[in-house]
Amino acid sequence: MPYVNIRITREGATAAQKAQLIRGATQLLADVLGKDPRSTVVVIDEIDPDNWGFAGETTTERRKAGR
Amino acid sequence: MPYVNIRITREGATAAQKAQLIRGATQLLADVLGKDPRSTVVVIDEIDPDNWGFAGETTTERRKAGR
Amino acid sequence: MPYVNIRITREGATAAQKAQLIRGATQLLADVLGKDPRSTVVVIDEIDPDNWGFAGETTTERRKAGR
Amino acid sequence: MPYVNIRITREGATAAQKAQLIRGATQLLADVLGKDPRSTVVVIDEIDPDNWGFAGETTTERRKAGR
Amino acid sequence: MPYVNIRITREGATAAQKAQLIRGATQLLADVLGKDPRSTVVVIDEIDPDNWGFAGETTTERRKAGR
Amino acid sequence: MPYVNIRITREGATAAQKAQLIRGATQLLADVLGKDPRSTVVVIDEIDPDNWGFAGETTTERRKAGR
Repeated sequence: MPYVNIRITREGATAAQKAQLIRGATQLLADVLGKDPRSTVVVIDEIDPDNWGFAGETTTERRKAGR
Repeated sequence: MPYVNIRITREGATAAQKAQLIRGATQLLADVLGKDPRSTVVVIDEIDPDNWGFAGETTTERRKAGR
Repeated sequence: MPYVNIRITREGATAAQKAQLIRGATQLLADVLGKDPRSTVVVIDEIDPDNWGFAGETTTERRKAGR
Repeated sequence: MPYVNIRITREGATAAQKAQLIRGATQLLADVLGKDPRSTVVVIDEIDPDNWGFAGETTTERRKAGR
Repeated sequence: MPYVNIRITREGATAAQKAQLIRGATQLLADVLGKDPRSTVVVIDEIDPDNWGFAGETTTERRKAGR
Repeated sequence: MPYVNIRITREGATAAQKAQLIRGATQLLADVLGKDPRSTVVVIDEIDPDNWGFAGETTTERRKAGR
């Protein structure tokens, strides 16, 4: 019954990539802790670059500065 | 001052239903723990079906397979 | 497959009350949105009163001031 | 490496204000706990007023009632 | 700069297993989305079995019933 | 009615420092967005160093390696 929340900036992750993240996270919990994949929940939040800050800057600012 | 976060897939919950969830969750905390409804926060997150995984599959995949 | 996170201060909620919150939240989602109780996850976080702030004060401060 | 999640209703916060929140939260953790700004993550979630409940009402309902 | 939050019941995960979850989640985001491991945050929350509900029951209740 | 969640490693933050974080975060939202301090919730989660990963390592591992 694990719950995994993956938070990333909204920068073009495809449906296939998100499906891959979901499979990968579910498998990781099965492999490491023996958790039952059938009751594992994985939720991906895609956040607007204006709304994600790292090192005191928004991602929009960082991208403009080539970071 | 409780905080309740309800995460569901974005599959057509109406404004009236969301208001009902908010009332219900607020009442539940008042009934069970005597929490003051006037300072209870309830936030509903609606998640894209591509972004919600269960049993290793996205909800989009599960809906296509009739699950 | 909903996920509900209930955050409250750690002020003596009993195991029975927490079970009641879990049943109540699960039932609420079934009643309002027709969600399947068998795949509903409810997680209760109990937070130290020093760590929960409301109106700019910690809960410990508020309790000392009779709020 | 702190992670700060700021959840507000979606009611017109500008990019500049969100950048200000990110700088302010990052600085707060540096000032109070000496945390390294270069590894501080701040994420702002803007929630639809229909989805944010306070005192048992949605924000949409509260705004209509002048609260 | 991804943030991954893994929530599991507190049922004996070892420090080594948690380190393995952290490495695995970090690698998953690098592999699938090309995210920089050096700025990936992974936080594991271990939740008391009385506080984790699935299918309307606490984990404590489920374990007693052999589920 | 904002909700701010500050997540830090459990490494000795005092009650006074946590009160300071709560006041600071509440004031930040008042200053930047004009939010009403009286309904602002700030919750601090302190996470075990074994449970907080950065750059693929647990904080326990990083501290041992002097990072």
